[in-house]
Amino acid sequence: MGNLLEAIQSVRLDDDNDALVLLDQTLLPNEKVFVELKEMEEIWEAIYHLKVRGAPAIGIAAAYGVYLAAKKSAAENYEQLYADFKQAKAYLASSRPTAVNLFWALDRMEKRLVKEKDKPVQAIKTALKDEAEQIRAEDEQVCRSIGEHALSLLEPGWGILTHCNAGTIATAKYGTALAPIYLGQERGYNFKVYADETRPLLQGARLTAWELREAGVDVTLICDNMASIVMKEGKIQAVLVGCDRVAANGDTANKIGTSGVAILAKYYQIPFYVCAPLSTMS
Amino acid sequence: MGNLLEAIQSVRLDDDNDALVLLDQTLLPNEKVFVELKEMEEIWEAIYHLKVRGAPAIGIAAAYGVYLAAKKSAAENYEQLYADFKQAKAYLASSRPTAVNLFWALDRMEKRLVKEKDKPVQAIKTALKDEAEQIRAEDEQVCRSIGEHALSLLEPGWGILTHCNAGTIATAKYGTALAPIYLGQERGYNFKVYADETRPLLQGARLTAWELREAGVDVTLICDNMASIVMKEGKIQAVLVGCDRVAANGDTANKIGTSGVAILAKYYQIPFYVCAPLSTMS
Repeated sequence: MGNLLEAIQSVRLDDDNDALVLLDQTLLPNEKVFVELKEMEEIWEAIYHLKVRGAPAIGIAAAYGVYLAAKKSAAENYEQLYADFKQAKAYLASSRPTAVNLFWALDRMEKRLVKEKDKPVQAIKTALKDEAEQIRAEDEQVCRSIGEHALSLLEPGWGILTHCNAGTIATAKYGTALAPIYLGQERGYNFKVYADETRPLLQGARLTAWELREAGVDVTLICDNMASIVMKEGKIQAVLVGCDRVAANGDTANKIGTSGVAILAKYYQIPFYVCAPLSTMS
Repeated sequence: MGNLLEAIQSVRLDDDNDALVLLDQTLLPNEKVFVELKEMEEIWEAIYHLKVRGAPAIGIAAAYGVYLAAKKSAAENYEQLYADFKQAKAYLASSRPTAVNLFWALDRMEKRLVKEKDKPVQAIKTALKDEAEQIRAEDEQVCRSIGEHALSLLEPGWGILTHCNAGTIATAKYGTALAPIYLGQERGYNFKVYADETRPLLQGARLTAWELREAGVDVTLICDNMASIVMKEGKIQAVLVGCDRVAANGDTANKIGTSGVAILAKYYQIPFYVCAPLSTMS
């Protein structure tokens, strides 16, 4: 399982080749293509055109992006390096003005840069790589923790419905809503997962069904309007979704159709769980 | 309005040319093509490949089909004509074994044939034409009546959600669930209609949205999973759907997704109406 998720790891740094390597999500599920991005323009374009998507994954890609820009910089002192960094940061920030994680990751990279300012240029560059790797590792840890918590609410053999994509390719690893499914897979839980198509962009059909099948999970793709009947037929024991934002009052914003699934789950008395990291909460 | 519905009349007899004329529903919404069918093989193929669909429309097409077969017959007496009719009936019946209205219409045509057996062959043929026209006219009357009853439950300016296609092209005229919308249109009700896409075959997107727009109705096409949010936003004051069958206990069978829409309507306290003729009830 660990190996299987490694195989579809959607965002990674290839430091030896000064490249950000992304699984091009726009080509899924027909083609599994990893693109190697060395120029800032390529990274900007990849974020803009949703080759990488999912809030955590975008943040990680941006962190690697500004690290690679700093690494490439010919700066001989902190001031020059900072100027080059700021330019790259502003440029990448313009790729997706609505992505909170993008700004969060870029700001965190800048703070680290400022913190290390008294060090030699090369040491600052190494610190930036370390910060980007920490961002990635923390996300993996957070997702794993979400998975453990959620898994404790589930039982082996359950049928699980999910909407949109909150899986490994939207994060550093494991995903949010899909994290307990992957951990359960490692432990022989044999979940039967139902993935809503998630019209109009088909994140469920193109991405969730694809990544679960790649990882060997028993997954069935259904039309959005089939959710009611599979619940009625007793095939679903829990609904798991990710989310874009949890407001202070507990209201949750997620992909179109999530409220409908929640109402159906309530009607059929099926537990409905929103799986999200603390950073998603206001 | 009457004229607009005439313009999209999906099943009609062109007696002068010995032809059944069908709007080819497989080409909608991209092309509005009427096919002229003279051979039994063509009519069989049109039913088989869903060029004509909707229980009432299939029944009417089959009635016209066996009339045309009888008209073409070289029979010199009742027995010969009956033999030719039976052959055409059995052949058309094989085009869609699950369509109750198909058998109902063919049986009704046979009863009329038997009833007129003492008449000259030409008079029997004329009676068959009359029977087919009656089947068509009765369906139009029934749909109009459904429309009047349902319209009495609605108010001008309402937003109405519908799922799948229960419109003019599924019947002789008016449709079932869409009948009150067409009658309301004639009377200046200015309904705002929301049509679910109705995955996977997209009857809502391809057919309902098309026919309502052709008739000048204000229609908005939505993804199936958007039903909850448009209800929540107060855009829907009633849900109208057709149905395939009403069981004796009141349970209703209709296109996948209908139960989900009904549960959402209940949650948002929006009235939900199933519009069907008595012939649909067990």
